Amino acid sequence: MSEDIQSRINFMTAIDALKEVQRKSYLMSGTRFENSAEHSWAVSTFALIMQDYAPNEVDIQNVIKMLLIHDIVEVDAGDTLLYDEQANASKKQREITAANKLFGILPERLAKELRSTWDEFEEEQTNDAKFAAALDRLIPLLHNIHTKGRAWKELAVRYEQIITKNQKIKNSSPELWSYIKDKIDFLFQGRETL
Amino acid sequence: MSEDIQSRINFMTAIDALKEVQRKSYLMSGTRFENSAEHSWAVSTFALIMQDYAPNEVDIQNVIKMLLIHDIVEVDAGDTLLYDEQANASKKQREITAANKLFGILPERLAKELRSTWDEFEEEQTNDAKFAAALDRLIPLLHNIHTKGRAWKELAVRYEQIITKNQKIKNSSPELWSYIKDKIDFLFQGRETL
Repeated sequence: MSEDIQSRINFMTAIDALKEVQRKSYLMSGTRFENSAEHSWAVSTFALIMQDYAPNEVDIQNVIKMLLIHDIVEVDAGDTLLYDEQANASKKQREITAANKLFGILPERLAKELRSTWDEFEEEQTNDAKFAAALDRLIPLLHNIHTKGRAWKELAVRYEQIITKNQKIKNSSPELWSYIKDKIDFLFQGRETL
Repeated sequence: MSEDIQSRINFMTAIDALKEVQRKSYLMSGTRFENSAEHSWAVSTFALIMQDYAPNEVDIQNVIKMLLIHDIVEVDAGDTLLYDEQANASKKQREITAANKLFGILPERLAKELRSTWDEFEEEQTNDAKFAAALDRLIPLLHNIHTKGRAWKELAVRYEQIITKNQKIKNSSPELWSYIKDKIDFLFQGRETL
């Protein structure tokens, strides 16, 4: 019993490092970059808030479960910017190695359950995973809109990249895409970069 | 439609400030204090990890929902240290004022749903709320155990305070209490302060 609890606590201790993984999005206040733990909270809460915009068959509890753990592999693999093609090429292998190690800390049955949830998110085949991925994409767009595209400007991210790389939002929730696309268009005003 | 989405986005923007509310617990790595957004992620994930130690009748999805939003009122009311009696005297009123304001940003039906979830957590009458509260108490204990009681030492928190103020862990999950009580006893070694 105590050993079983200890392995779960060891897992919590290992993923605590997610609070020190820096993302490329500024806080809404603009004071600093956000980290992946804060982001994981925000996007899980976002699922609660946006559940009415999910396709009918989506199980929002499962979406939240995915979003709580979707980024934990970054404690070993780091955060990879969506628009960085080179880093994205090695992303999958780095993340799988990290997943094997992290979920391996947990008691077997729980490890299996959560790994399967993580795999579902990564594979993006189910409606739940597609909606979770759409929310995960939407959040950095909101941060950029709110800070007048500050991170996009600093990273020289182009309008066309943003539109192309975020089509999965449109596929899972056309209403949310229509909302955010208007904001992006208004920010760029026909320019290719900010 | 667009107005409905906008009010939900406004809510997300308002609660983003939770990432800048500092708690009195150090990260497991000890590099800095954690903030309330990171904590909210960690404790929600902890519910997933510890669901096997919940009383039978607990709905873990409802526990996670509570934990995701339990601290959002701190964007206005600040974090209140459990062992600070003076600050705790005014805590309730400050938090209710913040809840009225924050949930009021949302569309009416959603505001009602989430306010009721927040109230359930605050009132601590249901088994779900009791287990959520136990996990919320357990997390700072883990951080202190892992950092050799650093925050307790700096704040001169006494052994007896820790044991008394955390009895709700014992009431909701005796196994988790037994695990952590052993760790606290080992750390204090019979002393009253560290």
